[in-house]
Amino acid sequence: MRAVDVITKKRDGHVLSREELRFFVDGVTTGSLPDYQASALLMAVLLRGMTSGETAALTDAMVDSGIRVDLTGIPGVKVDKHSTGGVGDKTSLIVAPLAVACGLLVPMMSGRGLGHTGGTLDKLESIPGFRVNLSLDEMRQALAKTGCAMIGQTAEIAPADKKLYALRDVTGTVESIPLIAASIMSKKLAEGLQGLVLDTTRGSGAFLPDLEDSLLLAQTMIQLGEDHGCRTVALLTAMDRPLGEACGNALETAEAIASLRGEGPDDLWQVTLALGVEMLVIAGVAPDPAAARQMLEAARSSGKAAEVFRAVIAAQRGDARVIDDPSLLPVAPIVEEYAAKRAGTVSRIEPRTVGRAIVAMGGGRQTVDDAVDPAVGFVFRAKPGDRVAAGQSLAAIHARDQNGLEIARAALDSSVTIAARAKPPLPLISHRVTIKGVEVLA
Amino acid sequence: MRAVDVITKKRDGHVLSREELRFFVDGVTTGSLPDYQASALLMAVLLRGMTSGETAALTDAMVDSGIRVDLTGIPGVKVDKHSTGGVGDKTSLIVAPLAVACGLLVPMMSGRGLGHTGGTLDKLESIPGFRVNLSLDEMRQALAKTGCAMIGQTAEIAPADKKLYALRDVTGTVESIPLIAASIMSKKLAEGLQGLVLDTTRGSGAFLPDLEDSLLLAQTMIQLGEDHGCRTVALLTAMDRPLGEACGNALETAEAIASLRGEGPDDLWQVTLALGVEMLVIAGVAPDPAAARQMLEAARSSGKAAEVFRAVIAAQRGDARVIDDPSLLPVAPIVEEYAAKRAGTVSRIEPRTVGRAIVAMGGGRQTVDDAVDPAVGFVFRAKPGDRVAAGQSLAAIHARDQNGLEIARAALDSSVTIAARAKPPLPLISHRVTIKGVEVLA
Repeated sequence: MRAVDVITKKRDGHVLSREELRFFVDGVTTGSLPDYQASALLMAVLLRGMTSGETAALTDAMVDSGIRVDLTGIPGVKVDKHSTGGVGDKTSLIVAPLAVACGLLVPMMSGRGLGHTGGTLDKLESIPGFRVNLSLDEMRQALAKTGCAMIGQTAEIAPADKKLYALRDVTGTVESIPLIAASIMSKKLAEGLQGLVLDTTRGSGAFLPDLEDSLLLAQTMIQLGEDHGCRTVALLTAMDRPLGEACGNALETAEAIASLRGEGPDDLWQVTLALGVEMLVIAGVAPDPAAARQMLEAARSSGKAAEVFRAVIAAQRGDARVIDDPSLLPVAPIVEEYAAKRAGTVSRIEPRTVGRAIVAMGGGRQTVDDAVDPAVGFVFRAKPGDRVAAGQSLAAIHARDQNGLEIARAALDSSVTIAARAKPPLPLISHRVTIKGVEVLA
Repeated sequence: MRAVDVITKKRDGHVLSREELRFFVDGVTTGSLPDYQASALLMAVLLRGMTSGETAALTDAMVDSGIRVDLTGIPGVKVDKHSTGGVGDKTSLIVAPLAVACGLLVPMMSGRGLGHTGGTLDKLESIPGFRVNLSLDEMRQALAKTGCAMIGQTAEIAPADKKLYALRDVTGTVESIPLIAASIMSKKLAEGLQGLVLDTTRGSGAFLPDLEDSLLLAQTMIQLGEDHGCRTVALLTAMDRPLGEACGNALETAEAIASLRGEGPDDLWQVTLALGVEMLVIAGVAPDPAAARQMLEAARSSGKAAEVFRAVIAAQRGDARVIDDPSLLPVAPIVEEYAAKRAGTVSRIEPRTVGRAIVAMGGGRQTVDDAVDPAVGFVFRAKPGDRVAAGQSLAAIHARDQNGLEIARAALDSSVTIAARAKPPLPLISHRVTIKGVEVLA
């Protein structure tokens, strides 16, 4: 088989065979396929698309590029949750302990910040000492001990995905639904899950802003999951504004801890709760959504969920005292309130601008090897739809230095709009997607 | 400027600016743009297309990646001829000496065999001692001395094209009209020509088989030429069957010499004559096509054109005795006639199969560094439309060894069709394209 023939076939809009996709993935994994051929094929895939059969074959080949995690020795139903990314999206840190407190096992494999979006691993690493790079053995031990493990993608899991992802990032081939779906699902399917809940973000701050694309991505991932015996359901959530109030790694970790303790913003709790309900129902530990909701609320109000998170942090060598004392998290030297320049209604807080500002302030990566400053970011004091007076604080800026402060101010100048009246933002949770179809919730 | 932003812009169907295209070409030339980004952009260009403005800007940047040849010191009108490639296409070797004999200067920069198509340089190198890799100084000397120089692309001319071409060849991005046009024209425009005649092949053996594509390519190249003060005209010629009878480097050189001496197949002479007429008219040395035709026929019958070729060969250190004694060209040890398996009309001789067989027999390159066996190939004894008897020879196979012989037999088995009746082949010269429009000739 010649790589150029496979590229040409896809370029001309034909359907690649299972063997051709495996040749491609194996070539990427072993390095026998040069990057310039891989990137040409990725661009052809992005522009020509893939059938569901091709996406499934691509995913299978990517799973088989590494090992499948054997979790059969640990009794219990394993369910994970995955978000397609956003700004201020810290639900993983809340919903994993909640689900564990309700009886699930959560082997959670997360990612780092990417482009303008934050990453669960970076948020966890804002906790002093927290180790995300567990080996698979350590991951199994942590899972057996606390019911949860929060780790990064290891070298053994879908190595093809790791290489492809790095290449897509620099060749303009990220925004392809089959490639996104195969990337996410190859890792999830290697985890040995019985269930998976997808938080598919939509709106200007999402990787795929359009509703139609978000729905198609959710459906593609659900089909891949269900085909492999993993019950999969997706909620479409709003990312036309940041989720919650805190944006930035340590600030978000603190907000997640607050939420676990029954505090924190309501929108964050509503999305977390909805995701948790799906996890519990999929796993069969709750008979219906209402019962699941009661269980989750009890796990929060009883303090049980916070105790799970404490155990998880301790098991991964983090300073578990942050549960009681979030001031142990890294703190930025400069905190400044950003005041509304006029009275009116907040009509827009553009998440991409906020996310990019955090990266520019040092809180994310410009290149793969950059260190991340965990302390910097924003805490919003107003949300779209809120009426504000002139001079009232819209957000607290947490910056490392004067330069970061200026970046933050400029970002808020352009990302926050105050108008005489505001269009309503996207519904927080708008659609529920299962293998049976799409349910419009709001 | 970030490469990924340029790629994304073209991917999404937007028009790249002159600066963005220059950034791309400069990055390819200097090596600062990694191949994997270049190939992703090439695929996006192939699938999204380019406006005429983008194609012009790309071509300019490619010309500027190297030097422009200064031929102003050599008095005379400089006209070149370029073919988009085919099988059995040896018109360059005939028309260049003819045009010189009629008073033109022909600084001809040609290519090597590519895919299933042959290359002028490989044909010339079948002449013992012939050097095609002249420096630009040597090229100027040869041009001043004989009126013609037949050379390969030097490292100084459009180096971006050389790199891009190598990359396109292995990434399925050859068949893009703007990329083909920019590749050809960047080299031609660096030559300092006053005129250029394009032989744009169409039919199954051409790189772009479809008439519509061939016309568009011709028009794109003509626009680029005329925009740069180079009068450019194209003839669309048939490549649904090999041109002439000989296919293979030395066999084609021998046929070209025969044609210069007034022998050789009629179709080859008709195409050569038509190209020569355009060259003479464009250069202004003939007042009209009829006069040009008379001059070319006289240059052939007087032996003047053959004497020019003799001088060219000698100036480039080749054995000029081949003009009188073609048996001095390399000869294959095995020559076998291939007999018709049935009586009927030859309805098809598929040029791609023939061209690929020559490559497989050693007469072309599988990879860039392969040596070429100049002696192998075919001499067809029948053409599409000819009636043949069972057992009558259809072609002579010239092979190096038994393996080559078997490849050749199998290729003829599949490429030659004999039927009860045959559809007429494509008209030999079907369209004439100038900046003013398309003229249908047949």
